Amino acid sequence: MSHRVYNFYAGPATLPYSVVQKASQAALDFNGLGLSILEISHRAKDFDHVIKEAQKDFKEIMGLSDDYHVLFLQGGASLQFHMVPLNLMLPGKPADYVNTGAWSKKAIKESKLLGETRVVASSEDRNFSYIPKGLTANEDASYFHITTNNTIFGTEFHSFPEVPAGIPLVADMSSDMLCRRLNFTDFDLIYAGAQKNMGPSGATIVIIKDELLGRVKDNAPTLLRYKTHTDKDSLFNTPTVFSIYVIHLVLKWIIESGGLDEIEAVNRKKAGLLYGAIDEMSDFYKAAVTDRDSRSLMNVTFRLPNEELEQQFAKEAESKEMLGLKGHRSVGGVRASIYNAFPLEGVEKLVDFMKEFKKKS
Amino acid sequence: MSHRVYNFYAGPATLPYSVVQKASQAALDFNGLGLSILEISHRAKDFDHVIKEAQKDFKEIMGLSDDYHVLFLQGGASLQFHMVPLNLMLPGKPADYVNTGAWSKKAIKESKLLGETRVVASSEDRNFSYIPKGLTANEDASYFHITTNNTIFGTEFHSFPEVPAGIPLVADMSSDMLCRRLNFTDFDLIYAGAQKNMGPSGATIVIIKDELLGRVKDNAPTLLRYKTHTDKDSLFNTPTVFSIYVIHLVLKWIIESGGLDEIEAVNRKKAGLLYGAIDEMSDFYKAAVTDRDSRSLMNVTFRLPNEELEQQFAKEAESKEMLGLKGHRSVGGVRASIYNAFPLEGVEKLVDFMKEFKKKS
Repeated sequence: MSHRVYNFYAGPATLPYSVVQKASQAALDFNGLGLSILEISHRAKDFDHVIKEAQKDFKEIMGLSDDYHVLFLQGGASLQFHMVPLNLMLPGKPADYVNTGAWSKKAIKESKLLGETRVVASSEDRNFSYIPKGLTANEDASYFHITTNNTIFGTEFHSFPEVPAGIPLVADMSSDMLCRRLNFTDFDLIYAGAQKNMGPSGATIVIIKDELLGRVKDNAPTLLRYKTHTDKDSLFNTPTVFSIYVIHLVLKWIIESGGLDEIEAVNRKKAGLLYGAIDEMSDFYKAAVTDRDSRSLMNVTFRLPNEELEQQFAKEAESKEMLGLKGHRSVGGVRASIYNAFPLEGVEKLVDFMKEFKKKS
Repeated sequence: MSHRVYNFYAGPATLPYSVVQKASQAALDFNGLGLSILEISHRAKDFDHVIKEAQKDFKEIMGLSDDYHVLFLQGGASLQFHMVPLNLMLPGKPADYVNTGAWSKKAIKESKLLGETRVVASSEDRNFSYIPKGLTANEDASYFHITTNNTIFGTEFHSFPEVPAGIPLVADMSSDMLCRRLNFTDFDLIYAGAQKNMGPSGATIVIIKDELLGRVKDNAPTLLRYKTHTDKDSLFNTPTVFSIYVIHLVLKWIIESGGLDEIEAVNRKKAGLLYGAIDEMSDFYKAAVTDRDSRSLMNVTFRLPNEELEQQFAKEAESKEMLGLKGHRSVGGVRASIYNAFPLEGVEKLVDFMKEFKKKS
């Protein structure tokens, strides 16, 4: 194994090393074909196998039935902020959104450009440090949208809204996709940029229930209609071949690791260790999310007594090969992103460093 | 060097082997940082250097002044078909398009969804086997759009329309980007999916003149406004990091190869060899593009006496490690895509095979 650092970046994020090795090999020569995965036609047989396997593995891992389509699109969650209302808004029926932070706000902004949009709940009153509870959807909504994990603030949904039958539940899962077992069939549309839990940047996963495809208006741009992509099984235009290949490797890694239950167990262990350390040393480290039911398994945010110490903390950690611990520029503090592929030993090393740093400060 | 085949696919397409090797290494460990290029934050210093270098190299290679922006977006040319009219159409001023094939038609279709669109010239009368000549733009047009190279039919613009001052000339250069020296400053907006001449799929290059940025309507979706991306220097949202890294390597390869003049010389040699062989054996091979002024340097299309022979030709070539010679499914025949990185020896090998195949048929 070559030299590896601990990568706490919020995304693009760390990948399993076995995936990195296979991806590097395929970039040189794919399946012994005498060409790189970077050079292969998206319509070649060997890539067709990859994309079909990835679709099958998503369904298997998530327990989805055949009325769901798995798509690999481009443009990230940012393009989904537009595509969701474009494809799902019904005339005279407002779109309902829960505002839990920066990414929700961006989604809401794009929806408002297209039609009536209601913010049915928000945690902005306490700087997005919690997830609103007891949510229910309005009967007249076009759909109900949540952001399941909020990378900047470090919050995550752990219980989900009650949504009346007939109102699609839509979730941006960009930063906690496949981090735990959920009843995925409670959702009608799930989207996620790949670059946190699923692979390199450049691919956007969209999982959509068949019955939502008929809503889109006839004059919507071809590429921005989900139906364009379900009709062609994600090959309407050239997809991001390499990113999809790596996602396919990550899905195999999840299956080999024991599936979502095992992934979730490790994630709970890692997050538990880190939140435990923060709470134990609460005279020095302060969890940014005090509401324990709202704490993210993926992005652990905390503060030190002052900004100078926070900067010093991130800098010293970097010198010890723990990268990317600076909080998001909009909120400051410290953020440890510990996605699926982040190893337990890295969290243990961080906890040791936190103890040491506190002692000498 | 590991075993390599000759890859005649129309795209994603062959890359320089030195680029493939560097990309594979960076996928394992980037700059000795202890992490893969697939794992690095798009805001990390080492990637910032990559994207800035790529922008600088584009400008240097193309001779662009500082009033041009170089953007790395997602969604391919297909998303540009929508973004161009969305951003450039002016009220009461139609958009003018030249229809030279399947990709032009798609661009025209998306423009029509947004406003008045005129097809000012077309080669559909002879199944797109030539490029219309002597084109001039209407004085009242919002912009004038051409597709410089047509992968399916094998045609390419070799002289360009006269466009009055004030009317932007827009070009889809997806399949012949940087294959030759052009007066790039004659164009106001150039776009290209990366996966033919520039790198792996997943990145779209947009080169846009500053003065076009003010046209977009206020209610346009944030991600689909060019200004969103020029304001943030292509980092408004997470870009396709790895594809941009490889594009950066390809640009360095172009510079090291002697720049566009040298690239063009080699391309002319390769295409000359292949068209020469076809014309010499015209009792057996028929060039699909009889108008020599319209022949593509990138995609050489030809027919054999019947479809059965065409299929046999592609199949036998594959057994001799020449891949992807089957013509596009919509037109049939044979297509040899010989982009910048396709080696001269591969063309020589194909010509030898053509002679041999003719002899025994």
